[in-house]
Amino acid sequence: MWSHTALLIIDMQNDFVLPGAPVCVDGALETVPRITKVLNRFRQAKAPVFHVVREYREDGSDVEANRQDFFRKTGGFVVPGTTGCEIVAVLKPLPGEYRLVKNRYSGFMNTELDFMLRRLGITRLVVCGTQYPNCVRATLFDAVALGYEGVLVTDAASAQTPEIAQANILDIQNIGVTCVETDVFLR
Amino acid sequence: MWSHTALLIIDMQNDFVLPGAPVCVDGALETVPRITKVLNRFRQAKAPVFHVVREYREDGSDVEANRQDFFRKTGGFVVPGTTGCEIVAVLKPLPGEYRLVKNRYSGFMNTELDFMLRRLGITRLVVCGTQYPNCVRATLFDAVALGYEGVLVTDAASAQTPEIAQANILDIQNIGVTCVETDVFLR
Repeated sequence: MWSHTALLIIDMQNDFVLPGAPVCVDGALETVPRITKVLNRFRQAKAPVFHVVREYREDGSDVEANRQDFFRKTGGFVVPGTTGCEIVAVLKPLPGEYRLVKNRYSGFMNTELDFMLRRLGITRLVVCGTQYPNCVRATLFDAVALGYEGVLVTDAASAQTPEIAQANILDIQNIGVTCVETDVFLR
Repeated sequence: MWSHTALLIIDMQNDFVLPGAPVCVDGALETVPRITKVLNRFRQAKAPVFHVVREYREDGSDVEANRQDFFRKTGGFVVPGTTGCEIVAVLKPLPGEYRLVKNRYSGFMNTELDFMLRRLGITRLVVCGTQYPNCVRATLFDAVALGYEGVLVTDAASAQTPEIAQANILDIQNIGVTCVETDVFLR
């Protein structure tokens, strides 16, 4: 199971997770204990862990057009150097784990992720984090398109509502990604 | 001249510029005064400036295969947080200028550069920095491939030898990039 396998934890930053943050995903906070379990399993196995995070420049110049107004109105989010940009405390990367910055939905778009995974000989990706319709899904679709075997830990990923989560899990399962809950995954 | 035009200054970091650094480019230091002149002209014109820099992770996991041994033998270079990774003092970005990180030769490979330039409405790129056969050339070739008009400030870019510089300028000119010296550019 663990050889050639890496974990991607997506966007578990304070601005996306903590209640009251401008871009909080409602379901994200309750996934933290389950993500922690999955993360600990990878740490025990000494398998590669990628903490994939979003960053935007303070002036909003690199924010998607569709949320640029919102970014400016709210004073911005996931700006490097702010607390909101940091990974939630209990999931902080350990030395030897990778923090990888993306600017868009997919962890593969305009990032070094694919060539780092290839260098490590990774063929299987276990994905958790937030949120289902955007970054989790886009990353998994690109992973499958690039030839990786995908595993989604369904209750360690989140959306604004359970309905959105379920609709996305269905679509993700339909492209061949193994979808399992944390307890099943850890067994 | 200045509307729709951005400046790219490539890899003018201490580890590539200062004599004695493990990956110093011999010709780089003497270009600093000319790059400064070009940079000041863009600042006067309030035209966008991108400081394109290289970064490698401390463990070397994202270094090109061909220089990974060298990276480890020398103790690494352009690692974030080190002085060597910083842009040389006189060229430090001002607020409002962009620092953009790349992991490979081209400023366009796996970076947000193209979509930031499109957002800004940029159609013409003025390029200087180091070094000719690798990052300067790869960035200009990709710029042309993507449809940008290219301008190379020939004596504000550098190589290990003048012969390497000249051979590259010839090839770059042959794909339609305007190649001019600093004094001509500033006129």
